[in-house]
Parts: sequence; structure tokens; C-alpha cells
Amino acid sequence: MKQDLMKQIGDILKSIRATKPLIHHITNYVTVNDCANITLAVGASPIMADDLGEAADITSISSALVLNMGTLNERTIESMLAAGKQANAIKIPVVFDPVGAGASELRNKTVERILREVKVSVLRGNMSEIRFLAGLHATTKGVDASDADLQGGLEIGHSIAKTTAKKYGCVAAITGPTDILSDGRRTVLLQNGTKLLSNVTGTGCMCTSLVGSFCGASKDFLAAAAGGVLCMSLAGELAAEQAGETGNGSFHMAIFDAVSKMTAATMERRAKIEEV
Amino acid sequence: MKQDLMKQIGDILKSIRATKPLIHHITNYVTVNDCANITLAVGASPIMADDLGEAADITSISSALVLNMGTLNERTIESMLAAGKQANAIKIPVVFDPVGAGASELRNKTVERILREVKVSVLRGNMSEIRFLAGLHATTKGVDASDADLQGGLEIGHSIAKTTAKKYGCVAAITGPTDILSDGRRTVLLQNGTKLLSNVTGTGCMCTSLVGSFCGASKDFLAAAAGGVLCMSLAGELAAEQAGETGNGSFHMAIFDAVSKMTAATMERRAKIEEV
Amino acid sequence: MKQDLMKQIGDILKSIRATKPLIHHITNYVTVNDCANITLAVGASPIMADDLGEAADITSISSALVLNMGTLNERTIESMLAAGKQANAIKIPVVFDPVGAGASELRNKTVERILREVKVSVLRGNMSEIRFLAGLHATTKGVDASDADLQGGLEIGHSIAKTTAKKYGCVAAITGPTDILSDGRRTVLLQNGTKLLSNVTGTGCMCTSLVGSFCGASKDFLAAAAGGVLCMSLAGELAAEQAGETGNGSFHMAIFDAVSKMTAATMERRAKIEEV
Repeated sequence: MKQDLMKQIGDILKSIRATKPLIHHITNYVTVNDCANITLAVGASPIMADDLGEAADITSISSALVLNMGTLNERTIESMLAAGKQANAIKIPVVFDPVGAGASELRNKTVERILREVKVSVLRGNMSEIRFLAGLHATTKGVDASDADLQGGLEIGHSIAKTTAKKYGCVAAITGPTDILSDGRRTVLLQNGTKLLSNVTGTGCMCTSLVGSFCGASKDFLAAAAGGVLCMSLAGELAAEQAGETGNGSFHMAIFDAVSKMTAATMERRAKIEEV
Repeated sequence: MKQDLMKQIGDILKSIRATKPLIHHITNYVTVNDCANITLAVGASPIMADDLGEAADITSISSALVLNMGTLNERTIESMLAAGKQANAIKIPVVFDPVGAGASELRNKTVERILREVKVSVLRGNMSEIRFLAGLHATTKGVDASDADLQGGLEIGHSIAKTTAKKYGCVAAITGPTDILSDGRRTVLLQNGTKLLSNVTGTGCMCTSLVGSFCGASKDFLAAAAGGVLCMSLAGELAAEQAGETGNGSFHMAIFDAVSKMTAATMERRAKIEEV
Repeated sequence: MKQDLMKQIGDILKSIRATKPLIHHITNYVTVNDCANITLAVGASPIMADDLGEAADITSISSALVLNMGTLNERTIESMLAAGKQANAIKIPVVFDPVGAGASELRNKTVERILREVKVSVLRGNMSEIRFLAGLHATTKGVDASDADLQGGLEIGHSIAKTTAKKYGCVAAITGPTDILSDGRRTVLLQNGTKLLSNVTGTGCMCTSLVGSFCGASKDFLAAAAGGVLCMSLAGELAAEQAGETGNGSFHMAIFDAVSKMTAATMERRAKIEEV
């Protein structure tokens, strides 16, 4: 089981590098440079375009669409919807990162509207964000998961991922100390990563961009989501080994080094992955 | 005197790391990633949200508000005002960086409007910007202080800081070769830093974010502003020692390394600080 | 011929560092931080201002204007036009980077409008973008040149650069494996660079910012454009030697190191340049 999944993830990585899929992002201005660079580092090609006048056009020439509401604003909400609908029409995957869901009315309403009007392939968020989407009580602290929401443990997390996946007909990917991914039937657990990833802004956004890149090169969105999340976690581990002691700046840069050097063999060797 | 102040600054740094205050930024898209990362590096938690539909909501869950008008635009001016008023209402500090004040009518009018409608706790700018706010003749060269404005010397700088502080009922923090901070009664001088800081964009913005982080963990805004400014200057010194010879890219990255490794002991040992 | 040109380029570099020209950018939010930092690294001073309420004012105090439509949006199109007209009025150079021309109707219309209403000094783009502007068939893959468009070879590239330069009365700078620059009469070929530059986002944008910096310190826009393009290519070569093996993050940072340490002597020694 684990070997099958890792074989599949490795093949997707190779396919990204062979086909260089174009990944359309409508994302935030805080971490957008990192998102573009991580997309390039894994071997895909990023394009960032958020004006309503061209959003759907750009989606039309892309292999996957990433919607990230980190710095949500009125102008780009409509662009996200137009791009999302176009992605649905041409049947390319939509990866949605509901940054800060639960933190403001604007975010809550926007999340609901996007999930109502766009068919999402993968939903990637932290435990507070996904709890909110599952309709559960969530306490959020800005854009990070709250400690309270992380208390539930694996049992509850597993159930939340499954519920969310079924509710929205997508893969739900909850990232955190343990990453929990479910498509409603199969569930994958990942135990890789490092706490240092939370010391750099945008590691969640970058993870979503990697998931988008993997989805741009595969029809199996659970494997693709697991591949993207694993790639980010392993980049964190490798960057921590390389530069964790030196400080946040060196660690940040080493993440891109690690992703650009990532191989299927490294992923298979280091993965702490199981299907449950 | 110096020892008391350094003790206080060291305690604020420890408090930031213990409480991880949420710092709401409405800032510019040029340096926003660096602002978020420097906030994380010092131990606080950044959240960037600039849409009028949620600005005040996000301020409500934060410990301090940073307003930076680096890439001012009509859309976010209203958000800055809404967030600023909310910060005043819930009594959290507002740190304002009037980037490029004096460089265009739009900036000049916006600065005046913000300072009229929002009670600011700390005003952080270069000599040209603060001269403009003090109502003095200022010659600005874009977003940097002009040489002419720096000629005045410490005597005049001290007087400008004091005047500005009294005029707006805030701490005025003029950063430059010597940093001059005043709350209208007490004045603090800082002689740390390196010229290399002006070779990287956003070191002023990052300084403001550090001041915001310190203000999010203290009620004494003069000490907090001094702590934030000193932290930035020392990060510059340490980064210069580490990577100054290598070039701008390595120096830039080393700033984050230095802030993430900054300790109260390092700050106390290296500070060239005096109260006058 | 080569020696004359390299002497001229070296002199422009020295002039940038002596006079620190202010370079007004209206650019995209993906690579804007890198554009500002590369401008500082070469010795010029960047200012990013894109609101219609101040765009022309900021142009008025600048030595060159860079227009980059990487993340085009309705709001900034008008600002680009206002700034461009002001630059024409006060006779400072306009450097235009038509990012993604050919990729969407919005981009195509905007490119045409800017080139109709603003007199551009240097047009910097990849082969797909410039083919589109020359009125030739172009196949674009998002923001990168397509392989098909690169097939033509030097003979055709030379002719496209010349045609475009004459059509718009400007210097046309096509960057790619060989960089081809023409003012309609003289043509310069550059063979420096490294494939690694395409692994980092924004190296095209940074190249445009360097061209803007060189144009801010010279009246000879062909030499200035060649200087900017050469500076970027050599930074790529030097960064590849320094950090190419380490990975994308280290390579990215080393670009800034290299530009900040660039000298006229290094440029002359390494340049593979010819006038044809």
C-alpha cells in the first residue's frame, strides 16, 4: 500500500518535470513570490493573474488552478469565482486554500460562496480552517491553527478530514503536526515535517502551490495532494538539517534548494506515510 | 538609566516570544513578505489584511496595528482609517510608517488625514518624512531621506523628534545614522546599525514591523519603539559581520537569521543607547 | 566596436553608482521585491507607486520609468498610461516589459494601448512577446517564450528585433539563449547567461529593472539596454558558479550578491558581445 502510493507520487514528480504544467494562481501578495518560486522549483510553471478581465482566459491555458485567499479583497473574489468556474468547465483541478477561514465575516462568506459555486478538487488548510469548513466549532488565531483546535488528536482529525471530503466532494488535506488527507473513503497520514516551517511565512501557501503542481500532472488527486504535502514537509526537514541552526533566513532559502533537488528516491526513502 | 531601559527592552523581547502577539499589518506589496518574516523572526505573529470588508475585524483580534503607506492606493487608505479607528476603540497601539511623506500630494494628504482621524502610538520614519510631519521644510528623494535633511545634526534632530511627539501625542522615532526617539519628554538616542541596511529594500518597513511587535507586548511605547529600532539595527550589524562582504542577497537573508537568533543578552551587550 | 561599447557600458554603471538615479516602477506584485532589490544592488534607487492619484507625480521626480505588466489589472493600466505620458512630457526614458503579451485579450489590448499612447524607449521581452508585438504569429505559454517561437534562429530573431524597433521607434531587446537588441539601425548580440535563470521567477522583470537603471543614467538607450541585459546575464553566470549546484534558493540569493559586486571590469572581461 505504502509502496504503491510512493511509486505513484514519484511518478507524478517525474511527470511534473517532464511536462512542466502551467499552474494558474490567484493568491495573496504576501507570499506570492515564494509560491511562484516553489512551483518552479518542483518543475512546474507558475502564472499569477487575478484581474477579472483575464482570469478565465488564463485558466483556459493552464493545467491546474490554485485559489488562495491569504489577502482577500473584493476585487479578486470575483476573479476567483470566474477562474474557478472556467476550471470546472474545462475539467482541470482546482486547489483551494481557505486562509484564515473563521477569522472574519468576509472570509467566512467568501469561503462559503467559493465552495458553493466552484467544484474544488483539493481543499488544503490547517486544523482551525478545516474545522470551520466542516461546520464544527473552531477558534482561529489569525492565519494559524489554534492550540485548542489541535487538541482533538488523530482520531477526531481523521473524522474531520473524512467529513469535509464527503461534504464538498473533494480531497481534504489538513496540514499540521500530522498531515491528514482524505477523499472520503481512503485516508492518508503523513508524519514528516518540522516545527521550523511555522517560523517562515507562506509555508502553508507554498504547500498549496505544490499540491497544485502535483494536481496539474495527475488525475488521482489524493495521491497528488499527498505528494505536494509530502514534498513540502520533506523540504522543511532537509532545510532544517541544512540551515535550521543558522536562522530563519537561511532556513527559508534552503526550502527552495531542497524542493529543486527533490527526487522520487528521496521522497520514498524519507516518507513516513500510511494509508488508514 | 541605560540599564533600566535595556532591562525593559529585554523583558519585552521575552514577552513577545512567550505571548506571540498578533500584529495586524496594512502595508505595501513591495516589502510585505519581509515584514511578515521579520515579525515571525522576532517571535510575534503577522496577519496582513487590507480589504475594507474585514480590516476592522482583523484589528479586533490583534495586539497591535501597523500602518505603512509604502505603496499607497485609494482602496487601502479607507481600510487604514477603519483599522486605525478600531485600534483606538479597543485601545491597542497603532504604529504608523509614513513612507514617502513629502513625495506626492496623495501621500501628503493621506498622512494628514490618518494623523487627524487616528491616534497614533508610534510614528516611525526617516528624517525627511518626520521633518515633513513636523511642519518643517523637507526635501525628499522618493522614499529615502535626502542628504540635505540629514545635515541638521543631532541637536536639531532631537528638537524635531520632540516637537513631532508633542504635536501628535505619540512617540516619534526618526531612524537614520543616529536614531532619535522621543515621547515629548524623554528622548532616546541609538548609535547602532550599518550603512548596508540602505542597500536592501524594506529595512525601514521591517523596522516598523519590529516596533509593532514590541508595542504588541508592552504598554511603554518609548521602550517598545527603542527595542524595535535597536533590534533592527543590531540585526544589520550582525548580518554585516556575517555576510556584508558577500553581497546584498546574503546580507538580506542574514538579517532574518540575526533577528531569529536575537536575545536580550545580545541586545544589552551591543546596544549603544542613551537617554538624554 | 566591442571595446567602445563595453567602455560605454562600464561608464554607465559607474554613473549609476555616482548619481543613484530614482527609477519609478509600476510593476507586478509577484517579483516587485526582487525588482526593488536588484535596482538597489546595481546602485540606483527604486520607487514603486501605482496609484493614479500619484503616479505622474512620482514620475516627475524620477530619472526613468519602468512599466511591467506581469500582474496586469484595470486599476494600474490607467496609472501606467498617466506615468508614461508624464515621462514623455519631461523626456525621461520609459522601459516597457510586456509580460505575457499574447496570453490574454486584456494583455493584448493593453500592450497596444500603451504603445499607442506612450513613446517607449526600450521594449524588453522574450521571443514570444516580441513576436506578438512585431505583428507575427506567436505561441505563448503563459509568461515564458514557447519553444516554437525560439526555433527561428538568429537570422529571424535579428530581423524581428529590427522590425519591432522601427515599428515603435525604440530599442527592442529580445532576451533568450542569445539576447538580440536593436534600435532599428545597430544591432547588438549577447551570448552570456545561464539556463538556471529560468528556474527563478522574475529574472526577466529584474532584467527590465536593470535596463531601467542603466537608462536612468545614459542618453544612449541601446548601450543602456545592452548594459542592463548583460548585467543580468553575468549575474546569472556568477550566481550559477557560486550556488548553481546548491539549488534554486541559494542561486536566487546569489544573483543579488553578484549584481551588488558587479564592476565595469568584470563586465568587460566576461562579455560575449558583438555588434552586427
